[in-house]
Amino acid sequence: MSFSPFDHPVLSGLLGDEETARHFSAEAEIAAMLVFERALAEAAADEGVIDTDAAAAIAAALNTFKPNMAGLKAGVGQDGVIVPELVRQLRSAIGKPHDKALHFGATSQDVIDTGLILRLKHVIAHLDAVLADVVELLAGIEARFGDRALMGRTRMQAAIPITVSDRVRAWREPLLRHRSRLETQSRGLLVVQFGGAAGTLEKLGDKANAVRAALAGKLGLGDAPQWHSQRDRLAEFASLLSLISGSLGKFGQDVALMAQAGSEIALKGGGGSSAMPHKQNPVAAEVLVTLARFNATQLSGMHQALVHEQERSGAAWTLEWLILPQMVAATVASLRQAKTLAGQIEAIGT
Amino acid sequence: MSFSPFDHPVLSGLLGDEETARHFSAEAEIAAMLVFERALAEAAADEGVIDTDAAAAIAAALNTFKPNMAGLKAGVGQDGVIVPELVRQLRSAIGKPHDKALHFGATSQDVIDTGLILRLKHVIAHLDAVLADVVELLAGIEARFGDRALMGRTRMQAAIPITVSDRVRAWREPLLRHRSRLETQSRGLLVVQFGGAAGTLEKLGDKANAVRAALAGKLGLGDAPQWHSQRDRLAEFASLLSLISGSLGKFGQDVALMAQAGSEIALKGGGGSSAMPHKQNPVAAEVLVTLARFNATQLSGMHQALVHEQERSGAAWTLEWLILPQMVAATVASLRQAKTLAGQIEAIGT
Amino acid sequence: MSFSPFDHPVLSGLLGDEETARHFSAEAEIAAMLVFERALAEAAADEGVIDTDAAAAIAAALNTFKPNMAGLKAGVGQDGVIVPELVRQLRSAIGKPHDKALHFGATSQDVIDTGLILRLKHVIAHLDAVLADVVELLAGIEARFGDRALMGRTRMQAAIPITVSDRVRAWREPLLRHRSRLETQSRGLLVVQFGGAAGTLEKLGDKANAVRAALAGKLGLGDAPQWHSQRDRLAEFASLLSLISGSLGKFGQDVALMAQAGSEIALKGGGGSSAMPHKQNPVAAEVLVTLARFNATQLSGMHQALVHEQERSGAAWTLEWLILPQMVAATVASLRQAKTLAGQIEAIGT
Amino acid sequence: MSFSPFDHPVLSGLLGDEETARHFSAEAEIAAMLVFERALAEAAADEGVIDTDAAAAIAAALNTFKPNMAGLKAGVGQDGVIVPELVRQLRSAIGKPHDKALHFGATSQDVIDTGLILRLKHVIAHLDAVLADVVELLAGIEARFGDRALMGRTRMQAAIPITVSDRVRAWREPLLRHRSRLETQSRGLLVVQFGGAAGTLEKLGDKANAVRAALAGKLGLGDAPQWHSQRDRLAEFASLLSLISGSLGKFGQDVALMAQAGSEIALKGGGGSSAMPHKQNPVAAEVLVTLARFNATQLSGMHQALVHEQERSGAAWTLEWLILPQMVAATVASLRQAKTLAGQIEAIGT
Repeated sequence: MSFSPFDHPVLSGLLGDEETARHFSAEAEIAAMLVFERALAEAAADEGVIDTDAAAAIAAALNTFKPNMAGLKAGVGQDGVIVPELVRQLRSAIGKPHDKALHFGATSQDVIDTGLILRLKHVIAHLDAVLADVVELLAGIEARFGDRALMGRTRMQAAIPITVSDRVRAWREPLLRHRSRLETQSRGLLVVQFGGAAGTLEKLGDKANAVRAALAGKLGLGDAPQWHSQRDRLAEFASLLSLISGSLGKFGQDVALMAQAGSEIALKGGGGSSAMPHKQNPVAAEVLVTLARFNATQLSGMHQALVHEQERSGAAWTLEWLILPQMVAATVASLRQAKTLAGQIEAIGT
Repeated sequence: MSFSPFDHPVLSGLLGDEETARHFSAEAEIAAMLVFERALAEAAADEGVIDTDAAAAIAAALNTFKPNMAGLKAGVGQDGVIVPELVRQLRSAIGKPHDKALHFGATSQDVIDTGLILRLKHVIAHLDAVLADVVELLAGIEARFGDRALMGRTRMQAAIPITVSDRVRAWREPLLRHRSRLETQSRGLLVVQFGGAAGTLEKLGDKANAVRAALAGKLGLGDAPQWHSQRDRLAEFASLLSLISGSLGKFGQDVALMAQAGSEIALKGGGGSSAMPHKQNPVAAEVLVTLARFNATQLSGMHQALVHEQERSGAAWTLEWLILPQMVAATVASLRQAKTLAGQIEAIGT
Repeated sequence: MSFSPFDHPVLSGLLGDEETARHFSAEAEIAAMLVFERALAEAAADEGVIDTDAAAAIAAALNTFKPNMAGLKAGVGQDGVIVPELVRQLRSAIGKPHDKALHFGATSQDVIDTGLILRLKHVIAHLDAVLADVVELLAGIEARFGDRALMGRTRMQAAIPITVSDRVRAWREPLLRHRSRLETQSRGLLVVQFGGAAGTLEKLGDKANAVRAALAGKLGLGDAPQWHSQRDRLAEFASLLSLISGSLGKFGQDVALMAQAGSEIALKGGGGSSAMPHKQNPVAAEVLVTLARFNATQLSGMHQALVHEQERSGAAWTLEWLILPQMVAATVASLRQAKTLAGQIEAIGT
Repeated sequence: MSFSPFDHPVLSGLLGDEETARHFSAEAEIAAMLVFERALAEAAADEGVIDTDAAAAIAAALNTFKPNMAGLKAGVGQDGVIVPELVRQLRSAIGKPHDKALHFGATSQDVIDTGLILRLKHVIAHLDAVLADVVELLAGIEARFGDRALMGRTRMQAAIPITVSDRVRAWREPLLRHRSRLETQSRGLLVVQFGGAAGTLEKLGDKANAVRAALAGKLGLGDAPQWHSQRDRLAEFASLLSLISGSLGKFGQDVALMAQAGSEIALKGGGGSSAMPHKQNPVAAEVLVTLARFNATQLSGMHQALVHEQERSGAAWTLEWLILPQMVAATVASLRQAKTLAGQIEAIGT
């Protein structure tokens, strides 16, 4: 199946990114859940909530666990979430008497939300690195061509002469702010979610905070009170993804317009046409516009999901699953295409 | 990769549909393109634009053609569209002297847009069949429980007593209108796209209309002037997809509220929880709300893509690829979940 | 207050339309509600549900009624809807003994939804007339310049020569389809809403259908079962509004690009700049793009409102109020700017 | 005209806020533009760019200036922006010889964008104050009822008992983060925009930075390089507005669900119905959901506007005008309704 071009065996040549895809495969998703369950068992054992024998048995079983994917698929069709069946399979792999110690005090949302955050941690590092690359490429373009003349254009009309540097600044400066936003947001976003059935960690009694802190520490995440019905940090992150692709969309739109005008920019390696093999289409520039508009569209859905009723909304939560991963994919695709496009600029200005 | 739950090996247990997925695999996409190229060769031969020998050679080569997927992936990364490289591979498979007769007069957009329409034809038939199933299930519920009492609720407050029939009518009636809309829209939507490099079929001279009509006939599609930069019929279809999932979202929301209230509805087979195995979560009902909000979000992007500049906008067109297939997937998932949910209703009203 | 440019005393010079504004003033809104109440009284009297004396007293009182606007404002702040306080004021104006005969069997939603439909009937006629004007202006452009040459452009690059006619067709043809859609949709949309407290017209007993039919007849609307929680026809109408502005957005974008290129189009009367008085900004063309993107954005909200829970959702219904009137305004503004722009084209092609 | 309920003489009783409306009237908008022009004249005089006599003449004329609103309306219809005609009127009021010193070096976007920022400065202070009020009211509710029992609900089903405090925390904590975000964002957002015709302040030569810094100082704004085609800070602010209304939407949805359930919450002063005067509709709660979904919808448009081509995009800029003010209005309305709702809670939990 390939409903999404990001998952498409052919279109991913245009829109994919292998590093990001690794973190959004079903395998990576399940692996992150196992990391959570193992760390939880260890944290619970550290705090005396479960036996150390149980934690060891869990760790051993998780090491060699191979999920029954057909079973998981059937389970999610029934339960709306992968975790009940995954826990069933894991407990069966652990066996008596330690099976019940797995997932102790936790609920589906803890596993899935924390699993997502663990993967976002990698993705954010990757995003930031590619952002830095784009910034550097644009700085290079400015260094080479910055003093050249360009016609400034306002409202689609020639205005007054500016320099290449003036325009490149408008592409690069927002990216610097985005890097700073990414750093600020990461502090609040990269935290553990652990609340149990309804957010109160009721099974852990007075050990609740200690187990949560230990769990966060083992996972390399920040510690924070449960946030399972407070989705503002995810929605804010989605906003930042769209800010990034939006700024790159401006870059793409500007380049596409310059390419149409003809003499203001020289691009190498544009795309070919099946009807006109001689054409040099500014494919990367156009795709940047596409991805900006895609993320701007999706963002609305992530904000609709803020209306997350009561202690857990199946409806709002599932909506995030349908949107956030593709916003990540679109943002990384946008950064990759921006790198490609910046690299294609052979000359700019006159 | 599984950025989209619709493509996800596990989550497709909740959100997938095998019949639809068959039409949105890369294989089905390429197969539809080959159907186009073969029909075009035959139509062109019928009208004397290419040799019948060439058409025969093309048909023979297409019969046994196996695409080099890695080559297509690299090609789309370069060209932004699969067709230039696909045509290259096909021409190489056909060999001299007939290779140039393939794709004669056509352009990428003809192949991709018509390929999409060919697949939508199947999808629409499937959509309509499942719509009819849901209508029938709801009629059955009304037949069994229609006279029972229900508390009418306005603005989240008890208003006056109504009957089960009153509420079920509000679920079923829009679906009947959607079936009628689907029929009306199909006439305009299921038409060939054939325009050549810039929409003028300039290579076909005075044979242009005849070849296009013959092509449409062979494909089982309506004949119509090229519409490559007129995307209103696709945006209108997307609107209808969202109307369908929106109406089903109301059904889901109503059932979820009744399930919360407790005594107004009896559902069998709800979803379990990893923390509270006894719970019966109205998973299908919630997912209907999710999918309604998802499609309502996506629809905006399909309408942004109406601003399709000049004779072909790479930016706007690619945006459709990112959105329309998943709207189809969401709509079918919504219809499937509606069937599931209707089947889970054991009693309603008092 | 002028949060909306459509309501703005200055910006309405760019985005307003007096004919449409007349139907969306608070006065017109209330007047339409009074039309409903009077017609309902007459219909109820015709069917013997209320006395003819009461109907006469109601008609007389409504003739001279002047609403207490401050009271209505306070009432809507309390009730979330204007009708309870309006009915209070009206009953007070009617006085004993006929005051209770007013609004008999009806509820707020009947008054507001039918009041909206009454005004949309005028608006649709206006929309269609301006659509026809734009079609005619584009036909005139094609008649004058259609045979001239234009460079066809695909993916922002010169492709092959086309004619002016080829491009103008892509602007005009969707508009013809929109006129046809408007006609088809109007039949389903321009119907009465009359359901009473929870949609069952419970106070009217076996006279319910007859009163509703008589009411519809008096209002010049179609008769239809209540649809207060079935919002598909409004969402479909919103989709059509966005299709219209979207097609005009393509026209605007094309003209803006041609104006930037310089030699392909001659426009008179573009906008000036405070910094560069000599500039001729293609203001109308740009605004067409703005309005297309605005409506594409809004449309999402109208489809979110399809999830209209139970017998009446205050949340979803109020969302429509925030969105639909401005979509109407944007569409009319778009048509007016399209007329302006078409009129500014002095030459096109070479 | 009242296309927007925020501007509506009656509906503003539900959705309006007088303090905010003051800053979004046409009068306030023009007044802020005059503040800009006066401060610019003073700053330019301070730096020796214009005569101090000229600055004095400008200040004197601006003091008594009354705009010709009909002229402004006609001007914006022509130019797409209010400033060219406003400058014409102002220069006429100033008269020879100092008229040309007005607006020296500036362009429309400087006046409008900085004028917006000046008004946002007031609005942000107001937003923050009302946010603080809501936080305090929720803290009061927690103090009074926090230890009471509540049924925790996940996926619309009873889960396990929690306390009132557990749920109120989920309403209050995001608001604290929003206050912190507001503070952080304000530093970057509340800065001057001053760039001249194409962003280069070309008329000011080596005085450009000094004049801009002086201008910022006089306006009480931060100094920053021109950002006229870098709209990320506005889009980020829009995201924050939607985060605020989204979090309040969760509060409203939770209360509406509790009000429907009946025994978990006691609200005073709900809205009445024209058909059922006894009903107590949770109007404020529902409106919070409406406004959350409204802003989530609008946000998409503000992010579409990030694709702001070249040195100034009339299309993207005008789109902001259509969206941002209403997002502000919706957010303030949301905060006001949240205050109302919090004040209506007489008891919660058992």
